[in-house]
Amino acid sequence: MLESAPVSHRFLRACRREPVDVTPIWIMRQAGRYLPEYRAVREKVSFLELARSPDLAAEVTVQPITRLDVDAAILFSDILLVLPPMGLEVSFADEGGPRVQPVRGRDEVARLRSFDPSVELKYVGEAIRRTRRALDGRVPLIGFCGAPWTLLTYAVEGGSTRTFAASKRLLYGDPDTCRLLLSKLGAAVRSHLLYQIESGAEAVQIFDSWAGELSASDYEAMVLPVMQGIVADLKATGVPVIVYANGGAALLERLARTGADVVGVDHRVPLDDAWARLGEGVAVMGNLDPTALFADVPAIERMADDILRRAAGRPGHIFNLGHGILPETPPDHAKALVDRVHRHTPLKASPNDVGGMASGALGAS
Amino acid sequence: MLESAPVSHRFLRACRREPVDVTPIWIMRQAGRYLPEYRAVREKVSFLELARSPDLAAEVTVQPITRLDVDAAILFSDILLVLPPMGLEVSFADEGGPRVQPVRGRDEVARLRSFDPSVELKYVGEAIRRTRRALDGRVPLIGFCGAPWTLLTYAVEGGSTRTFAASKRLLYGDPDTCRLLLSKLGAAVRSHLLYQIESGAEAVQIFDSWAGELSASDYEAMVLPVMQGIVADLKATGVPVIVYANGGAALLERLARTGADVVGVDHRVPLDDAWARLGEGVAVMGNLDPTALFADVPAIERMADDILRRAAGRPGHIFNLGHGILPETPPDHAKALVDRVHRHTPLKASPNDVGGMASGALGAS
Repeated sequence: MLESAPVSHRFLRACRREPVDVTPIWIMRQAGRYLPEYRAVREKVSFLELARSPDLAAEVTVQPITRLDVDAAILFSDILLVLPPMGLEVSFADEGGPRVQPVRGRDEVARLRSFDPSVELKYVGEAIRRTRRALDGRVPLIGFCGAPWTLLTYAVEGGSTRTFAASKRLLYGDPDTCRLLLSKLGAAVRSHLLYQIESGAEAVQIFDSWAGELSASDYEAMVLPVMQGIVADLKATGVPVIVYANGGAALLERLARTGADVVGVDHRVPLDDAWARLGEGVAVMGNLDPTALFADVPAIERMADDILRRAAGRPGHIFNLGHGILPETPPDHAKALVDRVHRHTPLKASPNDVGGMASGALGAS
Repeated sequence: MLESAPVSHRFLRACRREPVDVTPIWIMRQAGRYLPEYRAVREKVSFLELARSPDLAAEVTVQPITRLDVDAAILFSDILLVLPPMGLEVSFADEGGPRVQPVRGRDEVARLRSFDPSVELKYVGEAIRRTRRALDGRVPLIGFCGAPWTLLTYAVEGGSTRTFAASKRLLYGDPDTCRLLLSKLGAAVRSHLLYQIESGAEAVQIFDSWAGELSASDYEAMVLPVMQGIVADLKATGVPVIVYANGGAALLERLARTGADVVGVDHRVPLDDAWARLGEGVAVMGNLDPTALFADVPAIERMADDILRRAAGRPGHIFNLGHGILPETPPDHAKALVDRVHRHTPLKASPNDVGGMASGALGAS
């Protein structure tokens, strides 16, 4: 049997909006190029070799737990891994982002395959099992995948884009094919995340890196139904589901309606405003600007305190950056952030308040 | 003497929140690559040669007036033209965005020059005069420049960026140098726009393409004071000032405080929500998603109608896209949008209401 993190781990408790001793924190891309121990591994293997090697993926997944003392591990993997088994080859360069064999037109969309992740993405399941053994119950392990809309942009544009012209042309010019593609991508996301949960992931995150390029009405009409279906199926496993939307300031009410346990918000919207719009029924993750970690430590602490202050008074805040940590970040600054969040948590100040606030919030949900 | 557009032109009236016969519309980057007549000119000259040739710049500036029947012309120019006279060379490629000789550190910032635009950017003034003659009073001519923060990102990053890492490192790591650079860029923006007004520009727009990368509190602390100084000086000329912020959904209250006559908002925020947050004292420009023009004409008309409906009931709406028109756009779709806005304006429906609403709105400002 695998050692599980205790169900009472503060990260999992916060996902369920239960009171915690201190605010839990993890960092998007915490296993990444800003860490010298990660770069040492990457000198020997490519990005894709690393993602496909269960032992090495487990090794780099655990690195930031040891160094930073964060409250959750996130599997070293990539948001696009479902595309190749669907029939769309992906190549990863260190610069310029991934390149994807683009899908164009209804016939090509119709030809995209469904697949069995326990066969085609078996290395992900194996990496999860090895990571869980290496973590030995210290912190929970998060699995993840790209969201259907974000996967659609990579598949349709053939990679990164600034204008999203091809994606939007599909959305506005051929909405039926767009819906078909979102639906097929949604099915792949769902089966891949369920496989990650079966393999031992204790929470899952759906990364919608490009949700912010959609208007609220387009998100609602095209994307929300697909997301609701995925989230409902994942939640049936009992594992918390995090939906993260970069640039999602205009979408918050709709993001709450995905049914996610936790909505991750970027750094562009003040956390208290975001949470007021998300409503009582959801936990919130965020939202320090990743570039804030370029500041000196006292300035980082001030900015962290401001976010903690905005989240105080109700349980269900998971501290994170608003987007992935940048490769130029000094690791000591990331550690200083984690320490600050662990030391300075408004909820901690008055233990008697915690129960009252918690039961109040839970009662309202 | 130049022929002026009548002071009662609907674009200028809307800038002042006066009642109009129909909602005025122009399109960001309306003189651009989506037009075959523009591409024909660009086959002969580079982007920079075109911007620096008063005759050709005037020619392409007038092209969309003829084809689309928009209500304002905007000078063919570039947001970065103040950088070379300050000492930072810029090169323009058709792909990958402009490259700028990067400025790093306080000494390099201190060495940036101030300059006389009537000498160093004389070709801009000449292009404005020739364009005004070619327009012959048909529609007003808008001049423009990049905003200090946006110029800072190009100057510090050396071009386009996804992460804004160098800019944010300056902002958080050396705020005094950041303020000095913003101040020097602000002085250049101010003198360049005043020169454009002297040369005949009948409105000016400050493009803050990357304002959306700043949190509201950073915008307020670092950028707002510089913007307020520029806007105040420009408004003293009596010419309307438009401040456009891409990705500015979290900044709207601060954008109103720049003092601009008109705030341009992108397509990510519903126009009525944006206007409610901007308040009564400002006109609003926007905000159709540029990629909406990839849809068929009935869908474009529905999306345009939705925006017109959100803006109905008070004067001061200038229709525009939420960002620049994309090169892949069919020109006929842009024309269909202009026609729709000119035909279908809620304000037009009930003439008796117009005066009442206008005086109400003006009375409250």
